[in-house]
Amino acid sequence: MPFLLSPIEAGPSLPRILVINPNATITFTEGMQRSLSPSPDIALDFYNPSYPAAPYSIEGVYDSVTSAAGCLEELKPQLGRWSGFVVACFSNHPLTEALRELTSSPVTSILSAPLLLASNLGSRVGILTTSPRWVPLLTHDIHALHLSPLCAAGVVSSGLSVLDLEHLPRERVMQTLTKMAKDELEVSRQADVIVLGCGGMVGLDREIKAVCREGMVVIDPVVAGVEVCGSLVRMRLQTGKLGIYAQS
Amino acid sequence: MPFLLSPIEAGPSLPRILVINPNATITFTEGMQRSLSPSPDIALDFYNPSYPAAPYSIEGVYDSVTSAAGCLEELKPQLGRWSGFVVACFSNHPLTEALRELTSSPVTSILSAPLLLASNLGSRVGILTTSPRWVPLLTHDIHALHLSPLCAAGVVSSGLSVLDLEHLPRERVMQTLTKMAKDELEVSRQADVIVLGCGGMVGLDREIKAVCREGMVVIDPVVAGVEVCGSLVRMRLQTGKLGIYAQS
Amino acid sequence: MPFLLSPIEAGPSLPRILVINPNATITFTEGMQRSLSPSPDIALDFYNPSYPAAPYSIEGVYDSVTSAAGCLEELKPQLGRWSGFVVACFSNHPLTEALRELTSSPVTSILSAPLLLASNLGSRVGILTTSPRWVPLLTHDIHALHLSPLCAAGVVSSGLSVLDLEHLPRERVMQTLTKMAKDELEVSRQADVIVLGCGGMVGLDREIKAVCREGMVVIDPVVAGVEVCGSLVRMRLQTGKLGIYAQS
Amino acid sequence: MPFLLSPIEAGPSLPRILVINPNATITFTEGMQRSLSPSPDIALDFYNPSYPAAPYSIEGVYDSVTSAAGCLEELKPQLGRWSGFVVACFSNHPLTEALRELTSSPVTSILSAPLLLASNLGSRVGILTTSPRWVPLLTHDIHALHLSPLCAAGVVSSGLSVLDLEHLPRERVMQTLTKMAKDELEVSRQADVIVLGCGGMVGLDREIKAVCREGMVVIDPVVAGVEVCGSLVRMRLQTGKLGIYAQS
Amino acid sequence: MPFLLSPIEAGPSLPRILVINPNATITFTEGMQRSLSPSPDIALDFYNPSYPAAPYSIEGVYDSVTSAAGCLEELKPQLGRWSGFVVACFSNHPLTEALRELTSSPVTSILSAPLLLASNLGSRVGILTTSPRWVPLLTHDIHALHLSPLCAAGVVSSGLSVLDLEHLPRERVMQTLTKMAKDELEVSRQADVIVLGCGGMVGLDREIKAVCREGMVVIDPVVAGVEVCGSLVRMRLQTGKLGIYAQS
Amino acid sequence: MPFLLSPIEAGPSLPRILVINPNATITFTEGMQRSLSPSPDIALDFYNPSYPAAPYSIEGVYDSVTSAAGCLEELKPQLGRWSGFVVACFSNHPLTEALRELTSSPVTSILSAPLLLASNLGSRVGILTTSPRWVPLLTHDIHALHLSPLCAAGVVSSGLSVLDLEHLPRERVMQTLTKMAKDELEVSRQADVIVLGCGGMVGLDREIKAVCREGMVVIDPVVAGVEVCGSLVRMRLQTGKLGIYAQS
Repeated sequence: MPFLLSPIEAGPSLPRILVINPNATITFTEGMQRSLSPSPDIALDFYNPSYPAAPYSIEGVYDSVTSAAGCLEELKPQLGRWSGFVVACFSNHPLTEALRELTSSPVTSILSAPLLLASNLGSRVGILTTSPRWVPLLTHDIHALHLSPLCAAGVVSSGLSVLDLEHLPRERVMQTLTKMAKDELEVSRQADVIVLGCGGMVGLDREIKAVCREGMVVIDPVVAGVEVCGSLVRMRLQTGKLGIYAQS
Repeated sequence: MPFLLSPIEAGPSLPRILVINPNATITFTEGMQRSLSPSPDIALDFYNPSYPAAPYSIEGVYDSVTSAAGCLEELKPQLGRWSGFVVACFSNHPLTEALRELTSSPVTSILSAPLLLASNLGSRVGILTTSPRWVPLLTHDIHALHLSPLCAAGVVSSGLSVLDLEHLPRERVMQTLTKMAKDELEVSRQADVIVLGCGGMVGLDREIKAVCREGMVVIDPVVAGVEVCGSLVRMRLQTGKLGIYAQS
Repeated sequence: MPFLLSPIEAGPSLPRILVINPNATITFTEGMQRSLSPSPDIALDFYNPSYPAAPYSIEGVYDSVTSAAGCLEELKPQLGRWSGFVVACFSNHPLTEALRELTSSPVTSILSAPLLLASNLGSRVGILTTSPRWVPLLTHDIHALHLSPLCAAGVVSSGLSVLDLEHLPRERVMQTLTKMAKDELEVSRQADVIVLGCGGMVGLDREIKAVCREGMVVIDPVVAGVEVCGSLVRMRLQTGKLGIYAQS
Repeated sequence: MPFLLSPIEAGPSLPRILVINPNATITFTEGMQRSLSPSPDIALDFYNPSYPAAPYSIEGVYDSVTSAAGCLEELKPQLGRWSGFVVACFSNHPLTEALRELTSSPVTSILSAPLLLASNLGSRVGILTTSPRWVPLLTHDIHALHLSPLCAAGVVSSGLSVLDLEHLPRERVMQTLTKMAKDELEVSRQADVIVLGCGGMVGLDREIKAVCREGMVVIDPVVAGVEVCGSLVRMRLQTGKLGIYAQS
Repeated sequence: MPFLLSPIEAGPSLPRILVINPNATITFTEGMQRSLSPSPDIALDFYNPSYPAAPYSIEGVYDSVTSAAGCLEELKPQLGRWSGFVVACFSNHPLTEALRELTSSPVTSILSAPLLLASNLGSRVGILTTSPRWVPLLTHDIHALHLSPLCAAGVVSSGLSVLDLEHLPRERVMQTLTKMAKDELEVSRQADVIVLGCGGMVGLDREIKAVCREGMVVIDPVVAGVEVCGSLVRMRLQTGKLGIYAQS
Repeated sequence: MPFLLSPIEAGPSLPRILVINPNATITFTEGMQRSLSPSPDIALDFYNPSYPAAPYSIEGVYDSVTSAAGCLEELKPQLGRWSGFVVACFSNHPLTEALRELTSSPVTSILSAPLLLASNLGSRVGILTTSPRWVPLLTHDIHALHLSPLCAAGVVSSGLSVLDLEHLPRERVMQTLTKMAKDELEVSRQADVIVLGCGGMVGLDREIKAVCREGMVVIDPVVAGVEVCGSLVRMRLQTGKLGIYAQS
């Protein structure tokens, strides 16, 4: 069952943003729902596609294509219901660009939004991601988005797969993540801002910050994606339709 | 008299952001105050330095240095009063980096914030600025901030000086700005997003959008700066203190 | 019915390359088949997906996702039949990366292959593509592939849509294409190599070269994609599996 | 005696490519001849200049200039005999650009050709070269050719000089090369493709691949140079004469 | 008392350059004066601002702004006395750009001048600076000046603060600096040119060179700044006034 | 007869710089000699190779190779006579790098030296060169030297060949050059600094400056090359021998 209800059923006149977890793991979507604070002027809905229309986790381009196709099939007929969209996969997921073509409502990505915010807070931003393969994948994606210079400390793998975040004991997950944040990003790479590099890490920012030296910044990418989308919605900005996102 | 009151005196427990117009022209500050919508969860204060501690407009690096020194002398003793700061000069004004060193509260710039937001809305962002000299100055500043690839349509001068925005008849100002937006950015440079490139252009976005082809995006930089700062404040993110902004 | 007809039924021991036209327009696939010369040591098969599993032409990211998903559903079970693959859409089509993940046989793209070959022949390579929207799309894709410096004269739109190539009278198509090649690429942008920027332009290289000044180079992207794939097959090189294309 | 015969004396109507080893060490040329497989549709000739017109190995720019001048003096009068040229020195050897000026037949370089092919196979290509000095030299050359982003794992020195490849016992050579490929490129730098960085390493690719983890790609640069040149010849593409290679 | 006399009172007709130490530590200024050789055709004057108009050392952007404002207040009325200016702070100090706006006489920076000269002498230039915070600050500044590719070995901190150079025993200072030059720049980063990264390191180049391997180059930034300024003065070149340095 | 005497026979103890015009046109060398002012502390010698060891003008890479080989054959045995060298061809002439390998005395290029100096004077430097072919050649060379960002206004051809500078009536030469400087660089490209892009343009800077708007900067490349070399000689800096210029 792909849809989840919105936690904040504010008045019907509030603009609504749809947070899309593009994999089929509903517990990730629920984690996002729990971690996002209610906003007084924007309502949030949450969605994930069903299996096998989309995979349980996204580990590369093949998964991204399947996931995007699965989401689009379900969402395309009803896109008019939302004033904004957040694609909550930490990658240059093709759903982001596809949605920008299909609707005028603004669409943000949980990969680019935290990097954009981070550029206000430090000069050596680093990303803590899941399995080793995401290092070259994210390096490629960040370059494609012209954001490499905003990510000077690069991408570090925790060695955990996306589904490990869900299935391993939480203590072991946190031990692994905090060790990499501290040793690899803070100490070796001299990062001054850490972006959590997976939608499944939603809500872990404070615990990771706690192990770092005072003054480190840790950013939750899902919250960042929702905040940036909220700004665009509040400013009544829409996707530009005279260039790359023109509808054919 | 440098201080202006906040238009939204919400409850005393709300976090407050200080919007700094770093030149001494109070009518610009008032324009910002008028154009910013009240936010339900953040209060705004407005400030500009007094003349001759700071110049009436900022036309280069010498003016920036004077302006930054003037603002810092007045603001430094009381920085603890705000949870966030917006430096409302459309440049890489040194006050931005200086404030990031002096306080942990996040600081945004009305140059970088609209470019960061715009990257979600189009792929050929262009800037409409004031006098011709701001073209090389902004080109330099945008490069220094690693944002050149997010501003593919470049910087266009309207030929108007900063103070022309204030002193010329509004009709003539709008005629000039809309012509350049249309002819130079939309048509010649194929921009799909236009960022207004001067704090003094606050509130002019809708009129400029109206002359462009349906689907053009026009961004008010002051509103963008306040929105991005608001996001950082809501996320309780602070300036990183382990790298470039460490206090010595 | 998606097709697989090999024009060159050489001995069964020859390695086979599959040329994939990822849209559903069979006449484009037939054009590719007609334009490719038989090779003495490699056999070619041709494929396109059926409608509506894939669109008749690809005009953006949404179409790419649909097209990739459609092709993958049909091809995935039988990938072991080929020693190499050519993705014959002039874009950074996600099928290219997805196939590199799914198989070890080399995969080339008709966007990158002609640019790689062109870098041996000149220093101001330009692309002649179809509708205006492909200009920002291809500019983005070429950057994502790190090939922008190998395409110094940039991308020029002919104003024709992909399907215009098929449906308009050939004379009018050629008039439009040759005019843009000559006026915009050769003269205005000083290109010394022109890459035809659409799979549907297969076989048009000689006519376009004929209108340019002696010494211009015009490259057919489909032939280029097949040649580069053939080189990789002959060298028995396979896709690397220790990094970005590792199977999860 | 500078000329070697072609190993494949196919019919006189076949196009011929000249493989130029631009140093005077004939055993390198013979190694190239042995390692290149006969092609059914293109004949290969091999050449190296005589000493002291050219040095026995090329260790920098002075050697390159001498080598290029020596080759050009001998070859210039007879360039019309070949349909393509391969400059088989792993550097941005000036002979490559000079030949492109002097003839319309395509010219490839064994530095750029394997990097171009490798970009289809992985995203972290690394080079294994000879003496330490070639690290800054090749880093410079690869940048000059706009290929740095296609060589993300950089250049590694084996510590062997070019002539060590010839004079040291083969076992010791292979021990040194395989150790560096494994330890420095595969493990430390996370390369997923290794390009052998010296014409004298022709034919060593399979042995080096054998020590790496399954899935590593190793490219022989001489074979790559010949394959890319063969593609250009088959496509009847010629060097562009309207720009950088115009004859004065 | 901010002014120091010129050591070389050549004839009154000689052009004069003002060397500006923009912090208030007079012993640094005196060190510069001692280390600069008399030139037969250009006279040198030396200046530093007084405390508290400027800080005793510059450790970031806030200090730079204060320092620039302090210097400009004292110097602005008398800029016509000099034919050239050297801003002797190893950073992109805003005084440099401000002076270029205020006068036509050429202005050089001791950050950019040694990097420009070094590009003639090697390909892996590295900088040895003071406290760790200067690493991200200088990395930013060098990028802003478009000089990153001329500084391939990057910036290394010695761990000493600017004032440590003055207050610690000289032996300990030299021990620390030579160790970092040798271990970090020469060995780890393979630098072939070392630029001393602080105005307070004036005159230390020979001692640092002495510990490195024969063939290392060590550049004194203050001498470099004066030499480049001298060249501009001798060539009668002035700051361009048609672009970024136009006076408003 | 390749050698010319030095115009300034100062005391024998003065360091001497050799200015190398690497083509065989002696009148260019004489023009350089006439245009360079005597320096009180450095003596200048002038050299050009003889024909046919080197061509009368350099119009590409083949000419550069011939020219470099011709110069090196004559100069190599006597390099110890000079404390510095200026390669007076406005290109990335291979003689520059070859000399840096062969000697420790500093070597400057009249392509890079004026760009380095210009970076102190403006932010949109442009080059006025000879024939159209030099536009792609110089664009390539400037990139190879990492100097593209210091040449933002790019390269403009005057349409004159190198030898036209010598053979056409001076009035016509100046008319052509001043028109291009004014119309193309000052007006169209908004250059604020113009570098004369040919050794044969030595001494023409003032006339070209005279036609431009007050505040334009025009740089003579030969004078710039000699000034930068003089700085290196005075600072007793030598070519680094631990990296790219190590002697093998």
